[in-house]
Amino acid sequence: MEKKVRIEGVITRMLEMPTLKESVLIEGLPGVGNVGKLAAEHLIDEIKAKKFAEIYSDSFPPQVFINPEGTVRLVKNELYYHRGKKRDLVILTGDYQGLTSVGQYHLVNTVLDLAEKLGTKMIYTLGGYGIGREIRHPRITGAATDIELVEELKKFGVVFKDEPSGGIVGASGLLLGMGKLRGMKGVCLMGETSGYMVDPNSAREVIKVLSQSLGLEISLSELESKAKEIDKISKKIRHIEKAMDEKKPDDLRYIG
Amino acid sequence: MEKKVRIEGVITRMLEMPTLKESVLIEGLPGVGNVGKLAAEHLIDEIKAKKFAEIYSDSFPPQVFINPEGTVRLVKNELYYHRGKKRDLVILTGDYQGLTSVGQYHLVNTVLDLAEKLGTKMIYTLGGYGIGREIRHPRITGAATDIELVEELKKFGVVFKDEPSGGIVGASGLLLGMGKLRGMKGVCLMGETSGYMVDPNSAREVIKVLSQSLGLEISLSELESKAKEIDKISKKIRHIEKAMDEKKPDDLRYIG
Amino acid sequence: MEKKVRIEGVITRMLEMPTLKESVLIEGLPGVGNVGKLAAEHLIDEIKAKKFAEIYSDSFPPQVFINPEGTVRLVKNELYYHRGKKRDLVILTGDYQGLTSVGQYHLVNTVLDLAEKLGTKMIYTLGGYGIGREIRHPRITGAATDIELVEELKKFGVVFKDEPSGGIVGASGLLLGMGKLRGMKGVCLMGETSGYMVDPNSAREVIKVLSQSLGLEISLSELESKAKEIDKISKKIRHIEKAMDEKKPDDLRYIG
Amino acid sequence: MEKKVRIEGVITRMLEMPTLKESVLIEGLPGVGNVGKLAAEHLIDEIKAKKFAEIYSDSFPPQVFINPEGTVRLVKNELYYHRGKKRDLVILTGDYQGLTSVGQYHLVNTVLDLAEKLGTKMIYTLGGYGIGREIRHPRITGAATDIELVEELKKFGVVFKDEPSGGIVGASGLLLGMGKLRGMKGVCLMGETSGYMVDPNSAREVIKVLSQSLGLEISLSELESKAKEIDKISKKIRHIEKAMDEKKPDDLRYIG
Repeated sequence: MEKKVRIEGVITRMLEMPTLKESVLIEGLPGVGNVGKLAAEHLIDEIKAKKFAEIYSDSFPPQVFINPEGTVRLVKNELYYHRGKKRDLVILTGDYQGLTSVGQYHLVNTVLDLAEKLGTKMIYTLGGYGIGREIRHPRITGAATDIELVEELKKFGVVFKDEPSGGIVGASGLLLGMGKLRGMKGVCLMGETSGYMVDPNSAREVIKVLSQSLGLEISLSELESKAKEIDKISKKIRHIEKAMDEKKPDDLRYIG
Repeated sequence: MEKKVRIEGVITRMLEMPTLKESVLIEGLPGVGNVGKLAAEHLIDEIKAKKFAEIYSDSFPPQVFINPEGTVRLVKNELYYHRGKKRDLVILTGDYQGLTSVGQYHLVNTVLDLAEKLGTKMIYTLGGYGIGREIRHPRITGAATDIELVEELKKFGVVFKDEPSGGIVGASGLLLGMGKLRGMKGVCLMGETSGYMVDPNSAREVIKVLSQSLGLEISLSELESKAKEIDKISKKIRHIEKAMDEKKPDDLRYIG
Repeated sequence: MEKKVRIEGVITRMLEMPTLKESVLIEGLPGVGNVGKLAAEHLIDEIKAKKFAEIYSDSFPPQVFINPEGTVRLVKNELYYHRGKKRDLVILTGDYQGLTSVGQYHLVNTVLDLAEKLGTKMIYTLGGYGIGREIRHPRITGAATDIELVEELKKFGVVFKDEPSGGIVGASGLLLGMGKLRGMKGVCLMGETSGYMVDPNSAREVIKVLSQSLGLEISLSELESKAKEIDKISKKIRHIEKAMDEKKPDDLRYIG
Repeated sequence: MEKKVRIEGVITRMLEMPTLKESVLIEGLPGVGNVGKLAAEHLIDEIKAKKFAEIYSDSFPPQVFINPEGTVRLVKNELYYHRGKKRDLVILTGDYQGLTSVGQYHLVNTVLDLAEKLGTKMIYTLGGYGIGREIRHPRITGAATDIELVEELKKFGVVFKDEPSGGIVGASGLLLGMGKLRGMKGVCLMGETSGYMVDPNSAREVIKVLSQSLGLEISLSELESKAKEIDKISKKIRHIEKAMDEKKPDDLRYIG
């Protein structure tokens, strides 16, 4: 079965329309430290979730990516599903978030329309929380649609900050906000991250809390090896920066 | 009763559809010194106005705010009503104005469509008028749809400047302009403000004129205590700035 | 008779629907040196043209202007008509051009839809041509939909430049281009101007050619007195600039 | 026959509706080094392709160009056709690509709707690949919808880079990506170019591969003489830059 629906600049290409029970929607799109996307992709790989829909939108850049073998693929979002023991999962990931406010609202509505058809009552959105400095043991900060969910997440070590902030901008926030208007519940899990590099270390912590909360068993070894790789690159960069810093006064003297 | 209407990127969530007589629409959205929003919120609190509608729009940022207890709320505008002795009030406030020109026109049309159903014939829009310096005794500058309203406001000390200006940009101007096209009358009350900080002092002066004009009795003590708070913060900032100014020559010498 | 039509973010408020014969559309909207707007407004005043339509659009800024007496008016475009001996005139002027490309196309289509109903076969668009320096005797550069019109305009001293240029951007170009697609003919008259100030002197030269081409007799005294006023202001500014230039070396020495 | 279709801000003006068999769509719009546009225009000239459609869009700038004789033409895209021995060709070129993401998607959809009616199963998109330095012997880098096409192009010397890149942004990428969703196949041929100047030399290499792949015989002399012209201009510029470089230290000393 393949069906294409084209509404107001969005094409939803349905590869399959799965019948799910009490499905939970999990979102991990590109963002700060790519934490959400890394976590969602890891989850898809580990539970071997199956792709059932692709979303193309004129709110994405007019762009194709080139695969290593020379073939192209249009930028898109993707939806996967997995039939779990307790609850079925629907996972949203992709190349981009909508470029404009209008595009963001439109895409989130498209996803929620589809999620409603799949019986979604609960949403997890995954992301990074930029703190502007490197962090070895990132905490998970959270937000939720309901106070009961806040209390539940605290049990898993999720931190709820009392200080004022700019809130959550983008799909991770909007899915909760627009979902709430449709009677869905949801939580956002944000892994602390420097914001300077992709951060599999932070994604691992997000997956830890997510799998505890959903009662899933997810191997973290893949994210751990990615984290080690990034760690090596970080060290190299720091090394180069240090070398450059030591040379700087001299260089500047020349300008003066 | 709850009804949701979704038109071209705007969702109007009706909590209640009040029956009002000769209702007056009062707008106070974020803007210069947040004067309008502060005034509208103060009015809502003091007269215990009741929320009856929420407006969500893809012209707002794709954002949720996080409440102190960890729950999220989607950015929105809100409409309140109050049954008065003489005239009923409808009050518009919210988190944002529309981000784009198209969004501004669209939102104002949404509000006016609703106001028409509530029998609105008269609009008050509240805002700040940035003058670029701190001011102890802010005056209220005004503008109106009709010369009779200009004359009436002059009685309450409202100043009408004869000099050319850029007019009124945003919801405060557009509600009057678009309202006039529908046969509604209206005035804009702008409290002078520095434009550098939120200004409850200026909001208090706006409320004074508004309550005189509408024949309302509104306590100002809440705004006054907020003004004192802001005053303290301002003094601290000035103190720090002064200290930094005194240190500056030295620092600059180092660079030179 | 008053009729309002609201289509896709544009409100056309018809004050009257005149019956015209072989009407000529003349456009003068804000632009370089405000030459087109000055010329169109002068024409409206001199021939006592009658306003018959107002166009409001969400492609304009969300703004009201404040009249000297304190009343507001929503930014708009306006259409006037005049029954001439030979040919009837329709004149378009206003506060703004559309802010975006989409807005420009949309507004021009709105105007051309209306012009078609008024039997328009011929369009004159008026504007300025920025040359980056002050000019005492501005020439009129032209462009037209047909080679016959080019030849005709040359008789009135209009210059057609052979050099490559960026073409004509905005309503003056688009009305000709979109009009041509509907089978209308048209010319653009651009008065040379510095581009730094509003330029009634250039507008006068535009009106000269326009009135010759249309066989109209238009007094130019009003534009001439405006030009003298601007001339005085220019001289003052040059005087101040000269004084500042002479002081500059000293000021810079201090920084050095 | 002339037909105009106006859909959502796009006007397609059909001068003729040719009946074609197995038509191949070739796109060359403005872009890096104008390589694609130069190649498409050269092809149109050499095979004497016939224009059958013009596309006007509110995603283009609101602009007319002025022809040397003083007449104007609205910015547009154009479609040409040519009945070949083996396969018929449809060629897309024009003044601009869509200015916004939404505009790009919309225009590409318009073209593909038309191409589908003309039986298009295969698309060639032509463009430049900026490498930031001058290049005497530009290679052709490629991308394709299918691995078979990749292999086929390698026979003609097309290079497929294994390194990560930003993909292909604009009509050249989007036509392949959106075409693939409709079951069309396609390749993108990108001539290496400095990115600093229009590059007929690179366009010639693109045409070489294109004509080999399509089994066409195309004279390259016209592009070669254009390339020589550009080469002369480049040399002059380099000469001036060198002279300026040699003077620079002196000028800078003055500032110091």
